[in-house]
Amino acid sequence: MGVLVESDPVGTHRVLEPRGALPQAAARLDARPELWPDEVRIRVERLNLDAASYRQLAEKHGEDRDALRAEVLDIVATRGKMQNPVTGSGGMLIGVVEEVGPSSPLGLSVGDRVATLVSLTLTPLVITDGLTAWDGAGEQVPTAGHAILFGRSIAAVLPADLATEDALSVMDVCGAPALTARVVAQYAEGDAVVTVIGAAGKSGSLSLAAARAAGATRLIGVVPHEAEAAALRASGLADEIVVADARDPQGLRAGVAMAGGPGQVTVVCVDVPGCEGGAILATRAGGTVIFFSMATSFSAAALGAEGLAADVTMLVGNGYVPGHADLALDLYRSSPGVRALFASRR
Amino acid sequence: MGVLVESDPVGTHRVLEPRGALPQAAARLDARPELWPDEVRIRVERLNLDAASYRQLAEKHGEDRDALRAEVLDIVATRGKMQNPVTGSGGMLIGVVEEVGPSSPLGLSVGDRVATLVSLTLTPLVITDGLTAWDGAGEQVPTAGHAILFGRSIAAVLPADLATEDALSVMDVCGAPALTARVVAQYAEGDAVVTVIGAAGKSGSLSLAAARAAGATRLIGVVPHEAEAAALRASGLADEIVVADARDPQGLRAGVAMAGGPGQVTVVCVDVPGCEGGAILATRAGGTVIFFSMATSFSAAALGAEGLAADVTMLVGNGYVPGHADLALDLYRSSPGVRALFASRR
Repeated sequence: MGVLVESDPVGTHRVLEPRGALPQAAARLDARPELWPDEVRIRVERLNLDAASYRQLAEKHGEDRDALRAEVLDIVATRGKMQNPVTGSGGMLIGVVEEVGPSSPLGLSVGDRVATLVSLTLTPLVITDGLTAWDGAGEQVPTAGHAILFGRSIAAVLPADLATEDALSVMDVCGAPALTARVVAQYAEGDAVVTVIGAAGKSGSLSLAAARAAGATRLIGVVPHEAEAAALRASGLADEIVVADARDPQGLRAGVAMAGGPGQVTVVCVDVPGCEGGAILATRAGGTVIFFSMATSFSAAALGAEGLAADVTMLVGNGYVPGHADLALDLYRSSPGVRALFASRR
Repeated sequence: MGVLVESDPVGTHRVLEPRGALPQAAARLDARPELWPDEVRIRVERLNLDAASYRQLAEKHGEDRDALRAEVLDIVATRGKMQNPVTGSGGMLIGVVEEVGPSSPLGLSVGDRVATLVSLTLTPLVITDGLTAWDGAGEQVPTAGHAILFGRSIAAVLPADLATEDALSVMDVCGAPALTARVVAQYAEGDAVVTVIGAAGKSGSLSLAAARAAGATRLIGVVPHEAEAAALRASGLADEIVVADARDPQGLRAGVAMAGGPGQVTVVCVDVPGCEGGAILATRAGGTVIFFSMATSFSAAALGAEGLAADVTMLVGNGYVPGHADLALDLYRSSPGVRALFASRR
C-alpha cells in the first residue's frame, strides 16, 4: 500500500466522497488499518451507539435482531464509519491502543484503554466479528474490529480508579464544566454569581462544581420540580435552589432574582427548546450565557437578546476544551455531591 | 383609564395573551396610546416590513392590493403589532417622538425623528389611516398611527447629515461592527489577524472597518467571486482578499492560510447555511468565531468544533451592543470604502 496523500490532522485524507468534505459530513471514509504517520489505531471492544440512532434502528426492525445487526454492519461497511443515515448521529467507542504513528500528537501508548471523545460520525471503523456478541437489545455493542484516530482526534485514557460506566458518563458531558470554569474565571476577580439551569443533571452538577472551583461567589441552581430540588439540596452543590420552568422567561427571571441573581454567568444545561429568552433575562448586563443544550435555537438567542436590548455575551457550548476530561473526572472524584447526583440519574 | 399593572422594561405589562409570554412571543399586545411612566410613544410615518414577510404577503395576494392592505390592517388590529403569522417576522419603523414618559431611560425628546432598532414583532402598534397612502407595491409602507417603546426598547435618532435610506441601511446591520470591535479589542494587545467572511457586504464591510479601528493588525476579507473581490479591493478595507466558497471548509482554510491566517477572530457575515465548519477551521486555537448569519446552525457549530477538536470561542452574534448605531454611523461617515460598498449594494 502506498501512502501518496499527505495526512491532515482533521482527517480529510481519509474522505473518499464527496471530495472536499470534512469527515463528519462525508458519505464514505477510508477505514484501512494502515496508519498515516500522525494517526493512532484502536482495537475496538465496544461501541456506544447514540441514543437517538439506536432508537431509530430498533424501532425500524422491531423484534428482528438479525436485521438490526445486519443494518449496523451494512452502515459500517458502506460508509467506513458508524453514522446512522436517518438520524445523522453516531456515538463513541471503547478500545485498546494497538499502534501509534510516529508523529501522533495525542500522547497515547500501545496498550492504553481509551474512550474516544470525538463522534463515531467521523471515526474510520471496521467491524470484523459480524456483531455476533451483540444481542441487539441495547445501545452498548460489544464487538471486535479497528478504528482510526486522526492527529486532532480526542481520546481519553480510562482511569483505573473508576468503573468504566462511571468514567464514560462523566466524559460524555465533560465539555460543560471545562468551559464553565473558563468563563467563570474571567469574572472571578469580583462578585461572580453563577446560575446553572438544569442543575441536578450530569452536565449541570459538574458545571456547578466547576464554577465553585473557578471562584464563583454564589451558585444558583435551577431545577424543574421539587424532587430534583431535594436531590440538589442534599448534594450541597448550590447555595440557592430555584424551582422554575426554564421555558417561562418571567418565572425564571423572578425566581433567579429572589435567589440573589441575576448573575454574571448563566449556564443552560437542559435539553428542551425555548429556554433562550429566560436565560437571557436571568443574566445581568455585561454577563455571559453559555448554551450547552443541543435544543438551542441560534436565531431565538440572537433575536431574543436584540429584542430585550440585552448586552450579554452568548456562547455556543463548544464540547472541546483542552484538558476537559481530566478536569471533569477530578471534579467527580473530589465531589460527593456530584457523585450522588450521577448515581440518582442511573 | 387606570394603569393598575406596573410596567416592566421588557414590555410584559402589555402582553394580553398568552399570559407570561414575552412581547415577541405574544399573540396579542395592548397597543393603547396612554403611556406607562417608562414608555415613549412614536407618531408613525413609515413601516419597513421585513423582506420575508412582505414577500409572503405579496405572493399570497398577487395583484389584489386591496386584499394585501386589508390583511396587514387585520394583523395589526388583531395582534396589536405587525408580526406576520406565517413568517413570524416584522420589520422596523420610522416616526417622530410624540410623548416621553417621565421615567423613560431612552434619552429621547419630543420631536426627535427616530428609527426603531427593535423588531416590529414586539412593538405595540396602531394604524389609523387605513393604509390608504400605501400602494402595496413594496415593503416600504407610508402610514399614520402610533407605536410604543418600552424601557428597554432601542430607537436611534436619525442623523441630520445622512439620507434616511442610508442611515437605515447602516443601522440595520449595526450590531455586527459593534460586537466585532469589542472582540477584536480583546486580542489587540498582540498580533490580531481578523478574517471577515462576506467582506463586501454591508455588515461585512462595516465589520472590517470596525476591526481596523479596534486595533486589528491584518484584515483578511473573504468573498465568493471575482466581482466582489474587485469591489472590495477598490474599497481598500482589507489587507488581503480571498475568493472562496464559505461552505467549502478545506478551500476556505487553505485560502485564509495563504492570506496570512488563520486569524484570532473570524466574523461570519454570509447568510447561507453550512459555513460553520469552514469558519472554525479558519480560526486559530484560542481564537473567536462570531456568527452573525441567521442561517447558522447551533448544533453544526457545537458538534463541528468538537469533531475538529477546535479550541475556539464561538459567539452568537447579539444584535445589541450599547452604542452600536452611533458606532456604525461614525464608521460609515469616516470610511469612503464602506460608503462605496454600500452604494454598490443598492
